[in-house]
Amino acid sequence: VSNETFINGVWAATLTPLDNDLGIDTERLIRHAFWLLDSGVHGIGLFGTTGEAVSFSVDERVKALDALLTAGIRQDQLLVGAGCCALTDSIALAKHAVDAGCFNVLMLPPFYYKDMSDEGLAASFGEVIDRVNDPLMNVYLYHFPRLSGVPITAGLLDIVSQRYKGVVAGVKDSGGDYTNTQMMIERYPDLHIFPGSERFLHQAMIEGGAGCITATANANPRGIRDVWDAWERADADDAAARQTRATEIRSIVEKYPLVTGQKHLVAAHRKDPGWTRVRPPMTSISTTDGDALAAELQAADFSLTG
Amino acid sequence: VSNETFINGVWAATLTPLDNDLGIDTERLIRHAFWLLDSGVHGIGLFGTTGEAVSFSVDERVKALDALLTAGIRQDQLLVGAGCCALTDSIALAKHAVDAGCFNVLMLPPFYYKDMSDEGLAASFGEVIDRVNDPLMNVYLYHFPRLSGVPITAGLLDIVSQRYKGVVAGVKDSGGDYTNTQMMIERYPDLHIFPGSERFLHQAMIEGGAGCITATANANPRGIRDVWDAWERADADDAAARQTRATEIRSIVEKYPLVTGQKHLVAAHRKDPGWTRVRPPMTSISTTDGDALAAELQAADFSLTG
Repeated sequence: VSNETFINGVWAATLTPLDNDLGIDTERLIRHAFWLLDSGVHGIGLFGTTGEAVSFSVDERVKALDALLTAGIRQDQLLVGAGCCALTDSIALAKHAVDAGCFNVLMLPPFYYKDMSDEGLAASFGEVIDRVNDPLMNVYLYHFPRLSGVPITAGLLDIVSQRYKGVVAGVKDSGGDYTNTQMMIERYPDLHIFPGSERFLHQAMIEGGAGCITATANANPRGIRDVWDAWERADADDAAARQTRATEIRSIVEKYPLVTGQKHLVAAHRKDPGWTRVRPPMTSISTTDGDALAAELQAADFSLTG
Repeated sequence: VSNETFINGVWAATLTPLDNDLGIDTERLIRHAFWLLDSGVHGIGLFGTTGEAVSFSVDERVKALDALLTAGIRQDQLLVGAGCCALTDSIALAKHAVDAGCFNVLMLPPFYYKDMSDEGLAASFGEVIDRVNDPLMNVYLYHFPRLSGVPITAGLLDIVSQRYKGVVAGVKDSGGDYTNTQMMIERYPDLHIFPGSERFLHQAMIEGGAGCITATANANPRGIRDVWDAWERADADDAAARQTRATEIRSIVEKYPLVTGQKHLVAAHRKDPGWTRVRPPMTSISTTDGDALAAELQAADFSLTG
């Protein structure tokens, strides 16, 4: 069963702001989500790596999603991270998202046990799909081997893209190796392939990708959207120029830790020091490093706006 | 604050049997726990790597622990795995264990984010300790870098063994490198250091270790306990002979996947095929491999007894 709720475009893997008890601060999260959308992203990846997803319990994640929806973020503007180590947690998160009308879910593989077989990983995704049991669900597999230690391989995709046709909808490729993204775009024409960095956005769109889902849209939502818009109106020169600029900003931001560096930028932009909080095992960026990041961006004539 | 509830001796990292819906089968688990204790282990590590811990939700783990206690397993016979990626999950599991009188908890570090600072990891353990807030809790840190990707380093231990003196109680070292175990035994005389394999049991006891916490006690509880008993009565020759035999059996069992291979052995021993079930991403061992493991053990004159 296929459906037409697939996502594409520029998606921000949102940061997750915290309150002073290290819980999720839904008020700050709601404001940031609207700011991201107002600044041009097509949608928001809630609870990916940048969102410290795995550091929060199922209950915390459910409440944060509900708060965003209650505040008026639309279901089709959200890609909900749902992949955990515990199969039952993944099922609970995916089911809650889908029941709430958020049909697009991003699934890390279970990432503690290493060197599991393709069939074992396929069975893990399969149990989630079977137990959520809603043909409207679109599952995007999350390839981030540096952190997960469990790659989404072609062997695995060959199985699940056939076995769960129309439900397994795409891949977020945060491997950082664009040749792997290219391979996926070519080999799986029915899947929606998103590089995990705007660095590859224009090239991926030319070659058949679906957009990008990126951490650094927390700092540069407008600049990344500009690449997309130029590509969409088939202005190759402008798209290339916009891509060069977006990549320049990305290159600065990613010299620093993506989560804590960008939390520092948002805190400064909103004059809200509480925004810098992270949940352990992360630690906030030092003031020195945070200021250095801000200074590098200023030197490049860049600032968060709006 | 120190206390005298620290564990030592031979501890089995128990398998977790499943029902036909892939839930935890508490009846099978209770029977297995009593069999392990009757067969000589001093205690049971509930929800370690061998117990597929991370594959279960907090609720599932809480219910399984409660079932064991209700069935009559004593609190001081349990080491409860409580370390998750989500800080709130770790707190919930540790608090439940301690509130139930199980003061010994085994903590994986949060294992998704890699290359976190010692202070970040220390803060993670610290939040659990502060929020459980019971001086009777003993925290054993779980070093298993091959799977977690997050080692328990000397730098981290230097911090937490001082900052949480008497609460941070020891380490399970499943790194497989005995020189690291030796380093910990020497450097932290106040900590209880357990190699994660009986292969190093006798040597560790001679050098000041606390015992072992081992997966393969699911197959060979008696043989490993025999090493301990010979060491305890200071019969060095007998201890060495028992160690050689225990190591021989270990070497056979660890040629095969430790979880699925041993589930196969228990299933055969109890004539209970349902015992072979595992939760994805694991897959049950093939009949061929399982039978080969059984045949190798038989050729070595070994069988599960009792």
